[in-house]
Amino acid sequence: MAAANGIGETHTQFFTVATADKPFVFDGGGSLTDAVIAYETYGTLNAKKDNAVLVFHALSGSQHAAGFTADVPGTDGRWTADCQQGWWDSYIGPGKAVDTERYFVICANWLGGCYGSTGPASINPATGRPYGNAFPSVRTSDVVRSQALLLDGLGIKKLHAVIGSSVGGLIAINFATLLPDRVKLVVPVATGPRTTVLTRLTLFEQVLAIENDPHFKGGDYYDGEKPEYGLALARMISHKTFVHLDAIERRARGEVKQSADQLAWYRVGHNVESYMLHQGKKFVKRFDANTYLRIADMWLRYDPLRDAGVSSYEELFAKSRAAGHHYLVFSIDSDFCFYPEEQAELTSHLERAGVSSMHITVHSSKGHDSFLLEPELYTPHLVYALEGRSSRVVDRDIVE
Amino acid sequence: MAAANGIGETHTQFFTVATADKPFVFDGGGSLTDAVIAYETYGTLNAKKDNAVLVFHALSGSQHAAGFTADVPGTDGRWTADCQQGWWDSYIGPGKAVDTERYFVICANWLGGCYGSTGPASINPATGRPYGNAFPSVRTSDVVRSQALLLDGLGIKKLHAVIGSSVGGLIAINFATLLPDRVKLVVPVATGPRTTVLTRLTLFEQVLAIENDPHFKGGDYYDGEKPEYGLALARMISHKTFVHLDAIERRARGEVKQSADQLAWYRVGHNVESYMLHQGKKFVKRFDANTYLRIADMWLRYDPLRDAGVSSYEELFAKSRAAGHHYLVFSIDSDFCFYPEEQAELTSHLERAGVSSMHITVHSSKGHDSFLLEPELYTPHLVYALEGRSSRVVDRDIVE
Repeated sequence: MAAANGIGETHTQFFTVATADKPFVFDGGGSLTDAVIAYETYGTLNAKKDNAVLVFHALSGSQHAAGFTADVPGTDGRWTADCQQGWWDSYIGPGKAVDTERYFVICANWLGGCYGSTGPASINPATGRPYGNAFPSVRTSDVVRSQALLLDGLGIKKLHAVIGSSVGGLIAINFATLLPDRVKLVVPVATGPRTTVLTRLTLFEQVLAIENDPHFKGGDYYDGEKPEYGLALARMISHKTFVHLDAIERRARGEVKQSADQLAWYRVGHNVESYMLHQGKKFVKRFDANTYLRIADMWLRYDPLRDAGVSSYEELFAKSRAAGHHYLVFSIDSDFCFYPEEQAELTSHLERAGVSSMHITVHSSKGHDSFLLEPELYTPHLVYALEGRSSRVVDRDIVE
Repeated sequence: MAAANGIGETHTQFFTVATADKPFVFDGGGSLTDAVIAYETYGTLNAKKDNAVLVFHALSGSQHAAGFTADVPGTDGRWTADCQQGWWDSYIGPGKAVDTERYFVICANWLGGCYGSTGPASINPATGRPYGNAFPSVRTSDVVRSQALLLDGLGIKKLHAVIGSSVGGLIAINFATLLPDRVKLVVPVATGPRTTVLTRLTLFEQVLAIENDPHFKGGDYYDGEKPEYGLALARMISHKTFVHLDAIERRARGEVKQSADQLAWYRVGHNVESYMLHQGKKFVKRFDANTYLRIADMWLRYDPLRDAGVSSYEELFAKSRAAGHHYLVFSIDSDFCFYPEEQAELTSHLERAGVSSMHITVHSSKGHDSFLLEPELYTPHLVYALEGRSSRVVDRDIVE
């Protein structure tokens, strides 16, 4: 099942980020005395340990960015066939955009996740039962700090690059501005510098969809039925921002309406509805509602200024300027999740702060998900940026 | 409390559309043997009975389009202070866009509604309890037919005009093409010829939000707690398409976060969230979830081609051409609910069918709700169209 000419078989590893002696204290309150993060690596760390690239996954992603991982212990049935192929397999591998013959690639499941990192579904050693409601609120800064602990463990002082797409891009920016001395190149893909009002509204809808499910029980649902319709609804709300509407319509055409789709009163009347419900129900099998809620919460509370203790983006990115960062920012013209205006706002902040940056818009009919599906649109600039050939010569005088 | 120079005190009346002898049979199945529609009228019907203007309200509106109606019998506490002022009071009255000194204006609550027309919350004579789940699916064509019965009762053979905004505009188009001989002028405001994929997705989300509420019980909730969070969530999902996001942000600034906003796990973290939740909870007090579900269902199943028994928009609007209709179509440039492209599609169908039409885009920072809030943007064209002074001279030769 491994992709030809790809990474092949891969395995998830675990790194301890909290013990009773050294708890992990969350920035928004709460702590864990027993926690791991699940991670995978591809390629080889060189002797100088300066060829590492840290990739942050997106909302529903995992540590499994490339290759084929058959199973991950402790995922309680959530590691379905949909998870086995790495989510960025077409970008990471020998000769690919992130070339594993040159770079050592690391990807870790966020703390609070449901793919091996300690999260709400994990057993709370204090009670012998899943954390559920008791699992803390997780901020992007907690994800950054926990993954920095992993880098410490691997002996990596400074990353060659951080790459993050979508919500992973928020974390990449957070990483670069919280720990500016630990990275050189920053690649935010289809992301933004803040949570917009529209995103806030759709995230809050998703929070309510889960919280109002009859089986949610404040998050302590592991003994009984799961809040499946609530999570499916949350997924549907976000799904429509990930995929271009024309593509949803096209994909839905083959969808057969199932009698199982019938709700208490409403009769599903269109294949678009049936398709979205089916996708939502499929997602529910592979994801934990409490983790979803932690991620929505993380995104809603995203604030890189607060985390860095500054009051303006100019101050924030002054940290990147001082550290000599280069940013390669990607926009997707048809993105309904992180609109192109958001990356324009990001690059305008970078420019005002005097940070070296390049902003590339790819033209796609696939919407936000283009970053998962169309490596050919991103690979040339990724390769050049990773090779250090992408820095712009700014304000060069023209000699005739 | 009546508006100065306005309509003043108004009262809702009731018209019987179904009896045991003459049931109302719904186009999607089911029937009622005892049903009324609630309506109001403003101005005076002339002797020739040819000055009547029928106005269709939008999703959460009512028969109360103008003036001040203190209460409506049978609305079980839903007729809150938010309902007492007519929703189009700034458009309807002496000297206003729809001048009650010239026209006899009629507005009726849709069958299935919760403001006096028979709906799911009404008592089912067969059981002595509210219809709830047993209330049929309502199509726009049912609304059209039930209101045509009211026109029969009032002795009105042909309307001077039908005007409908938003979902009310869908019904106006449905009326004109189902009963072409009963109207002259058609005014669709901020609406479209069909339900788009995006609208379908957001409506289906709203259906799930209500159906998945722990108190929904298939629709038979009248004896216990109501599906309030589900309905509030549905309202929030649609609300963000009605109001420009900048306006939501602006209005939310004054919102104080309430401790009552706390959910089981998530802590409301931003005044935009608090504002939307507050608006959602306020809406729940004045609306019935089953009626909301009937309207979402009606909108999802909107199909004027099916209703008219034709297979193309050209055939559909051939009925309007044959009847000599004139259409005045309004777009709002900042509309996120019915996008300007939808009205462009409508007018392009009208033009292809050879129907006299005029398409006007108003520029507003208020989004979809502009049609409720800014009469000055619509009044001149409404006045001219109602006076018959708006028909375009098409393809006139230029004489030098």
